[in-house]
Amino acid sequence: MASLEDVGERALIEHVLKRIRGSAYVGPGDDAACIDVNGSRIVVSTDIVTFERHLVKGMTMERFGWLAAAVNLSDIASMGARPAGILAAVTLPPETDENVLYDIMNGIDQCAEFCGTEILGGDTKPGQGAVCGTALGICEHKVLTRNGARPGDLVAVTGSLGSAGAGWYAALNGIDEKDALSAAMLPIPRIDEGIFLSGNDIATSCMDISDGLSATANAICRSSGAGMDIIWESLPKGAGVDNISKRLGIPEEHLMLDCGGDYELMFTFGKEHLKVLNSSDIGFSVIGKVMSGNSVNLITDGIAGPMEDGGYEHFTKDRSEIL
Amino acid sequence: MASLEDVGERALIEHVLKRIRGSAYVGPGDDAACIDVNGSRIVVSTDIVTFERHLVKGMTMERFGWLAAAVNLSDIASMGARPAGILAAVTLPPETDENVLYDIMNGIDQCAEFCGTEILGGDTKPGQGAVCGTALGICEHKVLTRNGARPGDLVAVTGSLGSAGAGWYAALNGIDEKDALSAAMLPIPRIDEGIFLSGNDIATSCMDISDGLSATANAICRSSGAGMDIIWESLPKGAGVDNISKRLGIPEEHLMLDCGGDYELMFTFGKEHLKVLNSSDIGFSVIGKVMSGNSVNLITDGIAGPMEDGGYEHFTKDRSEIL
Repeated sequence: MASLEDVGERALIEHVLKRIRGSAYVGPGDDAACIDVNGSRIVVSTDIVTFERHLVKGMTMERFGWLAAAVNLSDIASMGARPAGILAAVTLPPETDENVLYDIMNGIDQCAEFCGTEILGGDTKPGQGAVCGTALGICEHKVLTRNGARPGDLVAVTGSLGSAGAGWYAALNGIDEKDALSAAMLPIPRIDEGIFLSGNDIATSCMDISDGLSATANAICRSSGAGMDIIWESLPKGAGVDNISKRLGIPEEHLMLDCGGDYELMFTFGKEHLKVLNSSDIGFSVIGKVMSGNSVNLITDGIAGPMEDGGYEHFTKDRSEIL
Repeated sequence: MASLEDVGERALIEHVLKRIRGSAYVGPGDDAACIDVNGSRIVVSTDIVTFERHLVKGMTMERFGWLAAAVNLSDIASMGARPAGILAAVTLPPETDENVLYDIMNGIDQCAEFCGTEILGGDTKPGQGAVCGTALGICEHKVLTRNGARPGDLVAVTGSLGSAGAGWYAALNGIDEKDALSAAMLPIPRIDEGIFLSGNDIATSCMDISDGLSATANAICRSSGAGMDIIWESLPKGAGVDNISKRLGIPEEHLMLDCGGDYELMFTFGKEHLKVLNSSDIGFSVIGKVMSGNSVNLITDGIAGPMEDGGYEHFTKDRSEIL
């Protein structure tokens, strides 16, 4: 008998996928599933956030609600879809002040509004503090998946890397690092970016990097049957990374590659689209190239080493161990 | 400051609804929400079941999974929609045997297959034992809501009443009452019934009675601005109710009206549809009539008394208090 913590979340998901039936347009295993409804592609995804794992020191309940919505809407963004609503099932201990529930729902509502959508429904039950969100989206164009990266494609990431991790450490240590704290507590789903990448048929693969860049690169490569060279010097360093790394002695690599919590999109695309991307409003950085084979490498000072999947893994690792 | 248990689930939901924006085709507050996607009506609902509240003595993990799927698919049925998929976010303590997760997912998969659909995706996180399910459906015809009951309409219910409650008591007391145990642990969402009521434009209102018949009658009346007379002698008594009531001294009224757990549909309809209903495959009983005013009455031996909302209320009542 193996326990969940022996096996780890990602292996568990693989084992589950082997045991269930599936025929959806894009099935279980991507950031979101996609079903075809009379020619419309409906994208749907569910994600749980819990007080135990996701409530940072100093985080208000409204921000916790925002985070719960953002992690779900980010999955919709990564498929190239426009949000069409969110559902929130909230569990809280019965003795909780009722305002905690209202504040969480307000935070979800605010994030939904920011993303051009709204709360469709929900549920409340006694239990641990947790929000199980489900986001829906409509994909008008190409559905972006993990499995289309082709050797020769460029690899890019929206925004910058490491701020969310820096923000978590800042919060834990009472350091006032505003932009990083904001990245950790008020992540912005990259809705417009996803729609642009889908609508202009640019991305060959796309995934959000919420579990960390290294985990995402490895997941895209596994799904696509390809390798990747990522150039360390090309990675866009986020606000607060420098300062938190120096003050707390945490390697920048950890914050930028493995720590997770940045809700940016990693995507691959053919070189011919670089001009369109450069002339768009999308903030992105080219960080590497898709290779044949199956090695995911990090090139530092011209020297290649394996970029192992060091991302956040539920069950087997405690966030407190990582932070 | 009031706590969640002071306020109770239904009042909490009303307070939340006042605080959030909403413009969905059928918004928060019904069994499911409905959005319009290029002319297709997508119905979506989320519900949590927890080990603490829903795991009956003697229930296997596969049956717990089935229950988790059924409660969600029942909400899709009550809207008159055809299931289009289910998502399952599962929280379990890290030390749990991995087979618990696989068994839960198998149970969800089996119920989904029974209802003609499949698992689209999910999430797993460390936490208490719980499944947050989200079901999607497509409504090809009229979306069935709670708010359309009109004075003069007949009131009906599918299947029978009280078996699920009898099954819970049977399980708790180690009584072998097969049909009742099955009703409690393997509830059947009334998918075909909902589609029939929608497709033939029969029902003026519809809702599942999972929280109990009395709660459902009161909810439909509140939403519709109407009253209701329910005839006690017309209520279809479920398997095991008689026996469990006698053996354990539990009033039949409690099992059939308040206990909840029966995933039947309560619906209202104009008399002119009775012939079509009678000649259909739908198993139903006419149990009363919609009245003007706002009183919900139970008529027993010709004498009317108020049928109070005695249904299951989370937060304020412990299931152990009820059972």
